[in-house]
Amino acid sequence: MFAIAATLLVLELRVPRDVRDLGGALLGSWPAYAAYVVSFATIGIIWVNHHVLLDHLRRVDRPLLYLNLLLLLSVAIVPFPTSLMDEYVLTEHGTIAAVVYGLVGLLIAIAFSSIFLYATRADGLCADAATARRIREEGRLFPIGLAAYVAGIALAFVSPIASLAVYGLIVVFYAFPQLPAASR
Amino acid sequence: MFAIAATLLVLELRVPRDVRDLGGALLGSWPAYAAYVVSFATIGIIWVNHHVLLDHLRRVDRPLLYLNLLLLLSVAIVPFPTSLMDEYVLTEHGTIAAVVYGLVGLLIAIAFSSIFLYATRADGLCADAATARRIREEGRLFPIGLAAYVAGIALAFVSPIASLAVYGLIVVFYAFPQLPAASR
Amino acid sequence: MFAIAATLLVLELRVPRDVRDLGGALLGSWPAYAAYVVSFATIGIIWVNHHVLLDHLRRVDRPLLYLNLLLLLSVAIVPFPTSLMDEYVLTEHGTIAAVVYGLVGLLIAIAFSSIFLYATRADGLCADAATARRIREEGRLFPIGLAAYVAGIALAFVSPIASLAVYGLIVVFYAFPQLPAASR
Amino acid sequence: MFAIAATLLVLELRVPRDVRDLGGALLGSWPAYAAYVVSFATIGIIWVNHHVLLDHLRRVDRPLLYLNLLLLLSVAIVPFPTSLMDEYVLTEHGTIAAVVYGLVGLLIAIAFSSIFLYATRADGLCADAATARRIREEGRLFPIGLAAYVAGIALAFVSPIASLAVYGLIVVFYAFPQLPAASR
Repeated sequence: MFAIAATLLVLELRVPRDVRDLGGALLGSWPAYAAYVVSFATIGIIWVNHHVLLDHLRRVDRPLLYLNLLLLLSVAIVPFPTSLMDEYVLTEHGTIAAVVYGLVGLLIAIAFSSIFLYATRADGLCADAATARRIREEGRLFPIGLAAYVAGIALAFVSPIASLAVYGLIVVFYAFPQLPAASR
Repeated sequence: MFAIAATLLVLELRVPRDVRDLGGALLGSWPAYAAYVVSFATIGIIWVNHHVLLDHLRRVDRPLLYLNLLLLLSVAIVPFPTSLMDEYVLTEHGTIAAVVYGLVGLLIAIAFSSIFLYATRADGLCADAATARRIREEGRLFPIGLAAYVAGIALAFVSPIASLAVYGLIVVFYAFPQLPAASR
Repeated sequence: MFAIAATLLVLELRVPRDVRDLGGALLGSWPAYAAYVVSFATIGIIWVNHHVLLDHLRRVDRPLLYLNLLLLLSVAIVPFPTSLMDEYVLTEHGTIAAVVYGLVGLLIAIAFSSIFLYATRADGLCADAATARRIREEGRLFPIGLAAYVAGIALAFVSPIASLAVYGLIVVFYAFPQLPAASR
Repeated sequence: MFAIAATLLVLELRVPRDVRDLGGALLGSWPAYAAYVVSFATIGIIWVNHHVLLDHLRRVDRPLLYLNLLLLLSVAIVPFPTSLMDEYVLTEHGTIAAVVYGLVGLLIAIAFSSIFLYATRADGLCADAATARRIREEGRLFPIGLAAYVAGIALAFVSPIASLAVYGLIVVFYAFPQLPAASR
């Protein structure tokens, strides 16, 4: 599903039609490409981290599946705020576009943190308590990610493009610490 | 396929174009977001329940595969009535939109019940007769779901929005009793 | 990929916009629903048969993967002639729509037959020669399917709707004989 | 994801609407079909080669996953330049369309080469050093592919259609040497 949502993003990159200066129209669409890359990377990093987390679980239960559905819902909706960014980030409505984008990012971060906390609680779904404790330690960085989305939303009132840049930096941040990939 | 249909739903959330009041246009589209969440949750819950059911089967045969195709067809069509809801639920055509939505929900419920009954019949596809009997007992709640869809369709003639709310409640209903998730 | 192509079909079912008589507009779109069901069933049956065939193979090689790509290409294109049917089957251009639809069906049938013949040849990819021979015997019905598509294309010049009905009957035909589903 | 991107290509094949001469309009869209086949084959061959390469790895690590995301991003974007080709290859903007198409092809080739080189380095992810060395030897052909994309981009300034033909030939080139498919 991460794969599907990420691939659907391309449908928001619309080919300019009936234009005289195709090169100029393409270059002028750079916010659309920037939003595409940020959204793709956001979904991609969540995908990798989600996959790595699930590899450390011994079993799944219904609450985890439902938290998972919440994460999937929020990830699946990403093409919508991305399209809003494409269309409006350079206009007078840029603030609204960047705020909506940040709210979806915040929803994803909350859903992922919930899965993380639920899955690694003491009597949880991990193979053993030691693994759960070690994984949880890595979760200390989560509040930073949440705060960064809030900062990005606040920044949208000053500069929507700067806000998009912050959302891109959050992806870089999430890409670094984290669990090691499970061996095959 | 459940994942694909659920992810495609976002394509029905259209970004308002050429509007003066983007914030107002987005807030005014709340029925589209409500329909998105109800449809996503409907597909998600069917997905979980379907997955759990199949985990209890020892084998599959052609009739089951064909019943499965019927379920997939009815799930795959969900973006269509969802889009109809988005467009018309607040207009004079709201009744038609809510009736069509309910009919697709009814089709999904019938297809899922058929798979359930076929898979758990006495000489069926379950590992043993005891498991089949235990799973079937949980199926006693199915007629309630079917009746709820019929009630939702009837309600569409009074209030299409109330009808959408009923469809949302059915999802909550289906999320509860059910089989335990299979251990890994 | 079969799943994706089948699910994308729903995007060709367009919601009528700005109509006075929504009920009438929906009912008048019945050829679109008929084409949706025929296309979904075509892809679904190919999917089941393809899955069953591959379950009987011991290994895959590059030529098989490339024949597979040809099948996937022809299946993935199905939404296009389906959309053509939706738009034109009831108009003066119905013949062209039904011919194009039939040609894509013919391409799928040829690609599937090629995979079947390649995979079951004497020194082929099946577990043993006896299995290969038994599977090949079921392939005797393939020329009937190919001939039926040719008949459907010819019928398009008389009645495009009758042609669509023939394409639907071919699906029913392909659903019947066939290999048993592999046990889990 | 390769499957999804390849299947989404069909959405760029738009059905002509409100035309008098449907047959002529369909035949006149031949560049769209050519671009569809080239793009589908490009994604398909990368898919097969990627799958074969990964089958030879003993484990994956985070850098490989991120290189993989880069490859997926560049493959997922293919429907966009394909649509650009459909719309503009026969017009005065053909050069721009063919250049953009080639740049995306180049990005894919670079991303795939990076994965290849990273995965097969001496102390790398392959089962053993001998396998890694043998696989790397096949990589000697990679610079030819990169050079061919550059040649295709240069040719776009002379003839966009000839450029598209070169992109098609690159697919044929990549389909041939390569690793054997892993046995099941």
